[in-house]
Amino acid sequence: MTRWKLTLEYDGTAFLGWQRQAQGMTVQQALEEAAERFCGERPVAHAAGRTDTGVHALGQVAHLDIARETSAHTVQMALNQHLKGLPVVVLAAEAVGEAFHARFSARARHYRFRILNRRAPPALERGRVWWLPVPLDAAAMHDAAQHLVGHHDFSSFRAAECQAASPVKTLDRLEVTRLGEEIEVLAEARSFLHHQVRNMVGTLALVGRGKWQGRQVAAALAARDRKAAGPTAPPEGLYLVRVVY
Amino acid sequence: MTRWKLTLEYDGTAFLGWQRQAQGMTVQQALEEAAERFCGERPVAHAAGRTDTGVHALGQVAHLDIARETSAHTVQMALNQHLKGLPVVVLAAEAVGEAFHARFSARARHYRFRILNRRAPPALERGRVWWLPVPLDAAAMHDAAQHLVGHHDFSSFRAAECQAASPVKTLDRLEVTRLGEEIEVLAEARSFLHHQVRNMVGTLALVGRGKWQGRQVAAALAARDRKAAGPTAPPEGLYLVRVVY
Repeated sequence: MTRWKLTLEYDGTAFLGWQRQAQGMTVQQALEEAAERFCGERPVAHAAGRTDTGVHALGQVAHLDIARETSAHTVQMALNQHLKGLPVVVLAAEAVGEAFHARFSARARHYRFRILNRRAPPALERGRVWWLPVPLDAAAMHDAAQHLVGHHDFSSFRAAECQAASPVKTLDRLEVTRLGEEIEVLAEARSFLHHQVRNMVGTLALVGRGKWQGRQVAAALAARDRKAAGPTAPPEGLYLVRVVY
Repeated sequence: MTRWKLTLEYDGTAFLGWQRQAQGMTVQQALEEAAERFCGERPVAHAAGRTDTGVHALGQVAHLDIARETSAHTVQMALNQHLKGLPVVVLAAEAVGEAFHARFSARARHYRFRILNRRAPPALERGRVWWLPVPLDAAAMHDAAQHLVGHHDFSSFRAAECQAASPVKTLDRLEVTRLGEEIEVLAEARSFLHHQVRNMVGTLALVGRGKWQGRQVAAALAARDRKAAGPTAPPEGLYLVRVVY
């Protein structure tokens, strides 16, 4: 039995998120079925981040155990062959020890959130960005974001259905940068609460529009109440970029 | 009657190219029908580049005449409203004189061709890049490309169905750059022959793989025979980026 660490890229538009669902195809199901077609038995796949419907991945990490003796190259090629037709691919495969767990061994997760900030809606990047036609002040968003960096109770940015034991997390980095018509938000932490990145982005967008001052973000954090912060940004702008072990 | 210059972005995957076709939706038809819904009569739209099926645009330029008196802002918003549901948007609208012609007034056209050069196929960029898993030498491709820059008879890179009066064109720029897993080819000229960029890219890919030497590209050009050059690269990597007037 070998444990394989897999790095995945996928288009979240095509899946009902990572985790298996009765209602439709998920990334987990696609990967497990591809592995079954390759090795004859269906393993259980575990991911670093259980992304929601519509959320994309440039570097999701999953692990699964395969009894058949094989090489990393064969695992990658065979899984990609069996995933053909679905917009998910294995970027890299690596044999790891049985102590490795994609979710629990992760030391940091890097997310990127893309906002298209122009009058015209997206044509090429439809489903890949959050379109906001009102001009946003990225510098004000960045300054406000710094109130959220650090060790805090993030209850105000936590989804009701979040299953984390504690709302206290350490946010290592939250940077907002304008790149032409796009605004990019980078978020790094050991782990995030459910919807935390999207709730932070939805709140920062209020600052970008001039509806909120930066200090209102600090007040929203201090309130420890979901109703005190801004709305949840849509999933299509969010990318799981990298997981660090 | 006002002539409007329109800058367009579109996802070529969704259209049978620019030009009207009996068999299905084209960008020209989508734009003309949107204009008709806006102003009651159907104008004829002319484009700077009659892109093929699958070819994308980040800055296509078209013009059309509208009798109704209106503002640039209204033209853009109304057309985008009526284009909703199709992946084509008006990035900018500008009133121009009746001497302006999107195709004949253009002084330069800038194309970009994207190659994804990695072992794993694209998930997020499917339909947006040419996937070539064999490692390519971008520096060798760039050096070979310089044989094509200048004033030449490009018959070797011309599609059989090309309607241009002459195969002689001036290629102002052909640059090949590696950006991580991607190779980007930039091509600039006053105008191009039909399939010229895709035929040049298909030929340069032979150099990138090491199948051809750079001087064979010069020999292919000198042969003035389509059979002397390499295959046509697929449309999905090609973007019309900008038209200069």
